[in-house]
Amino acid sequence: MKIKVLKFGGTSVGSVEAIKRSANIICDWSKKSKVIVVLSAMSGETDRLINLTKSFSKSPNPVDFDNAISTGENLSCALMSIYLNNQKTKSKFLHSWQIPIMTSSEHMKSRILSINKNFLLNELENLDVLIVPGFQGINERREITTLGRGGSDTSAVAVAAAMDAECIIYTDVEGVFTTDPNIVPNAKKINKISYEEMLELASQGAKVLQTRSVELAMRKNTKLSVRSSLKPKKIGTIITDEESVLEKNTVSGIAYTKDEAKITLSRVLDKPGVSSKIFGPLSKGNINVDMILQNISQDGKFANLSFTLPRADLEKALKIIKKEKSKIGYKKIISSNNISKISVVGVGMRSHAGVAQTLFDTLGKNKINIQVITTSEIKISILIDEEHTDLAVKKLHQAFKLHK
Amino acid sequence: MKIKVLKFGGTSVGSVEAIKRSANIICDWSKKSKVIVVLSAMSGETDRLINLTKSFSKSPNPVDFDNAISTGENLSCALMSIYLNNQKTKSKFLHSWQIPIMTSSEHMKSRILSINKNFLLNELENLDVLIVPGFQGINERREITTLGRGGSDTSAVAVAAAMDAECIIYTDVEGVFTTDPNIVPNAKKINKISYEEMLELASQGAKVLQTRSVELAMRKNTKLSVRSSLKPKKIGTIITDEESVLEKNTVSGIAYTKDEAKITLSRVLDKPGVSSKIFGPLSKGNINVDMILQNISQDGKFANLSFTLPRADLEKALKIIKKEKSKIGYKKIISSNNISKISVVGVGMRSHAGVAQTLFDTLGKNKINIQVITTSEIKISILIDEEHTDLAVKKLHQAFKLHK
Repeated sequence: MKIKVLKFGGTSVGSVEAIKRSANIICDWSKKSKVIVVLSAMSGETDRLINLTKSFSKSPNPVDFDNAISTGENLSCALMSIYLNNQKTKSKFLHSWQIPIMTSSEHMKSRILSINKNFLLNELENLDVLIVPGFQGINERREITTLGRGGSDTSAVAVAAAMDAECIIYTDVEGVFTTDPNIVPNAKKINKISYEEMLELASQGAKVLQTRSVELAMRKNTKLSVRSSLKPKKIGTIITDEESVLEKNTVSGIAYTKDEAKITLSRVLDKPGVSSKIFGPLSKGNINVDMILQNISQDGKFANLSFTLPRADLEKALKIIKKEKSKIGYKKIISSNNISKISVVGVGMRSHAGVAQTLFDTLGKNKINIQVITTSEIKISILIDEEHTDLAVKKLHQAFKLHK
Repeated sequence: MKIKVLKFGGTSVGSVEAIKRSANIICDWSKKSKVIVVLSAMSGETDRLINLTKSFSKSPNPVDFDNAISTGENLSCALMSIYLNNQKTKSKFLHSWQIPIMTSSEHMKSRILSINKNFLLNELENLDVLIVPGFQGINERREITTLGRGGSDTSAVAVAAAMDAECIIYTDVEGVFTTDPNIVPNAKKINKISYEEMLELASQGAKVLQTRSVELAMRKNTKLSVRSSLKPKKIGTIITDEESVLEKNTVSGIAYTKDEAKITLSRVLDKPGVSSKIFGPLSKGNINVDMILQNISQDGKFANLSFTLPRADLEKALKIIKKEKSKIGYKKIISSNNISKISVVGVGMRSHAGVAQTLFDTLGKNKINIQVITTSEIKISILIDEEHTDLAVKKLHQAFKLHK
């Protein structure tokens, strides 16, 4: 049985017109193969639901919270099925508990464990299209769980992986770009990109795909692509294994994220075990620390220790660090939240030297100070003042000739 | 285990404030017994959802339709549970598929077949409050079904019956009144009324309770009452068996409905089998005919046949009757939709004669023409011109001294 998995994001089901437009894309595919559709909630709906829950509790019970916000996808799925059936495309909406889509037990950031492939195959026997809600599943206690922001991408890839099918993500942009076209108008659409590069771009702020969905596609070797639901005829971006990407650019894209914060602890005793006293409690508090930088003081006894974290977690992290002050032992705590991170990504970096040099030269010429640097095999990330973000992205895009 | 079943209608969960107000009532009860709460969707939500489905299809696929409109109760239940847990009242929302609430197989007008009592008892062991969505269940194909308009009342009574518990319906009025207070400002709240009377009032247009819920309570002898969620301290109306109603009024209440239509077929052959040729096809078309009146013509061969039906079904009924014209054999078809039905209800009618006389006298004095009359043991219904509805209700309320 030939199966395609199509995922439509919030803006692609955000209105009656958008749902009908996306339905036409589904009808077209259904003439060539069986189709499983994964849908997000109508754009804005999940935010509306989250705000509603906040009217009743600042920190809602996670079981209740997932029950409330998962209603969004169920509605868009039911509406899509109504329209497809009305258009004589035989369709059925399957709830996550009907299939089931099993997830890990925790709420609000659950992970998909398994999808009942045989049940879906069986249902597809007599139907053209199955519609499955993204973003949710049920756990072993038969409670509804949600996968966290952007989780519908992961749902789609998980369904595709389970069915050994190709996954097409329909969204409101034409594909993955060399950088944000809002900042660099001549940014170019990338035709093919490796999983590894896409993973770095996604985790460094390119918002087209959720990081976990790319990770999963890479692990399962699922054929994945991104297209625009507004221009469905245009080939978007194909995300595939490195070997299939013929033209290996040194740099493929530039991502940035503005929601970073930095904490610096001055005069921390430079002794083994100190890091764990800082990062242990933060990790327990569910705070993901990103970059860590340590400058040894001249006398060799003390160090200044800086680390970055999501801006949303800054207050919570400061509270934890202050509470642990006597155990850690530091002089001052300095925090800033007007910083941003820029990442230059490309598999070609592996074989081409000089990427770091070009980066430093470009920023130096433009008097942009680099606060922290981290590198991986296919990525260089830097931390700069937030006010320089746009300038840095523009100049780097130009320096790496990504517009060509 | 002492259990109370509380049902809150759309207006009682229609806003953040309303949900919090109703939650306080639940918290109070939960100090005295275990509580199962049955909720409607937030007021206006079900209409919004129905309208949304109509944007995609004039006659949506019933499975899809039920999936779409059942999202409303799920949201109000989840929000209520968030607030109760926030208020330290241990609460859990149980989906109809989790319990399960099993219904008959058809959609949009399903009937509850069974509710898993032991599952609910088990869940109540460790909780103060269980929250259950009204209006819905699942069928043997594990599809979500809905019970039809006002079905949440029936859900509540069904849960109460299954748990051998008392059922309190919280709504936006103080109880059942002798007639509509919008027409008769000095209408009185009824303290106690028998199931039979309530059933007649509900089916004849008193909108406080859904007919099926009263029917079910009567069959299961479930203790049922209606209260205002705005004035929860006030005792509302208790609906109970006839023996428990001490003061047996000749007339308990007057109901009316304006959504009636009448069809008259002139010169129908007065022969056996003619009725089934008319009412058979109507019944197949799912049209409930209410009153039927037949006047034999002078020659004894032909009759004029009139019947009433819901106004919403008039067009459909006319189409059916016209299609069957050759089979039925009639001369003319006349329809009117500006008529209303008024019903005078009371168990005391059984023993007191003279109710009909008072009714005819009152309407006669006020020059209101009666088109059709039907009677049952505890009810007299009449059909009049719609424009006289308010006047007739007022004058009858006075004549039967219901304000005293």
